[in-house]
Amino acid sequence: MDNKALYKLSYGVFMLATTADGKTNGCITNTCMQVANDPVRIAICCINSNYTCELIKKSGVFTLSMLDDTCSFETIKHFGMQSGRNVDKFDGINMPKDDKGIPYMGWMSCAVISATVVDSIDLGSHTMFIAVIDDAKVLSENGPLTYADYQNRVKPKPQPKPEDKKIVAWRCKICGFVYEGSELPKDYLCPTCGHGVDDFEPVYA
Amino acid sequence: MDNKALYKLSYGVFMLATTADGKTNGCITNTCMQVANDPVRIAICCINSNYTCELIKKSGVFTLSMLDDTCSFETIKHFGMQSGRNVDKFDGINMPKDDKGIPYMGWMSCAVISATVVDSIDLGSHTMFIAVIDDAKVLSENGPLTYADYQNRVKPKPQPKPEDKKIVAWRCKICGFVYEGSELPKDYLCPTCGHGVDDFEPVYA
Repeated sequence: MDNKALYKLSYGVFMLATTADGKTNGCITNTCMQVANDPVRIAICCINSNYTCELIKKSGVFTLSMLDDTCSFETIKHFGMQSGRNVDKFDGINMPKDDKGIPYMGWMSCAVISATVVDSIDLGSHTMFIAVIDDAKVLSENGPLTYADYQNRVKPKPQPKPEDKKIVAWRCKICGFVYEGSELPKDYLCPTCGHGVDDFEPVYA
Repeated sequence: MDNKALYKLSYGVFMLATTADGKTNGCITNTCMQVANDPVRIAICCINSNYTCELIKKSGVFTLSMLDDTCSFETIKHFGMQSGRNVDKFDGINMPKDDKGIPYMGWMSCAVISATVVDSIDLGSHTMFIAVIDDAKVLSENGPLTYADYQNRVKPKPQPKPEDKKIVAWRCKICGFVYEGSELPKDYLCPTCGHGVDDFEPVYA
């Protein structure tokens, strides 16, 4: 099996947010598709160790902001490359909210869906949530940011290998998580996004 | 709810094929995403009335050819806009096959996945199949065809409304199905792809 074949699948890039027990959190995900009509339902997937996933299991509701092609790496880094367990990602940010009080992106986003979970399937590494759409709005005429565009244009390019420097850590190319250490265990899975060693790149001293 | 918000979701375009009871069939779908790791699993959705969907329920296996950006409308029309109940779409076409004997696209396709269903969820209009990947291959360096690119570039543009002509039928803009009649019932759903009246355009005499 050639993992590179899976890189040819097309995805968008989304900021997924929820509020449970008085705590609001959000993350970046690339998985959302419409799965049924009558009523319209979508499916999203979250890694089980992700804090937003834990909160959605409690709240059963979320907003999905569809990031657009003006979205910056800094915005994706803010919501996608740190954990809501350590930092309040929404502190001091003035964001619009849906009818249930869940924030969504008022900028760099071309549309938003407000949804209620009707089924969830635990897949081990991830949970898939199937949700009905309570509301959906177009926010701008900008095109959606695709995952391919994020990888090719938005994300900073990896540094070329320096001649005389040693590997001190490994960075997940998917989400930016950094593993400290010169050798990455063969069966290592990124604790943030769940991707394996093929998706890590070396960080030099 | 503004349905146009859902049009901002990003998808690829795929030819989904299977073989059951000695019968091979395939269709065009835009829904596939990776949903879990360890083992890698994907989810696809098929409308329940679709013949390929019926055959996958029997066979439990499929190939998913990822159409690339050289793919023609004629190819999508061949696999996506006629039913395998009426025509053998694979008759006389020399196609490569996976280890289970299921054909996949040897042209206009940048990658192929061969998969086995491990779970299926009946969503009323559609069935979602969750499948493990048995094999995956990159077939070319061409980029994947995105659903947006299919809509904007590959699919023929609708004809402008003629001044003195009457509406004689309605064509589904998603899959090409034609409803014969001047008035489309308000709650009509396309029998091929399941989309509603907002996705139909008039056909003039």
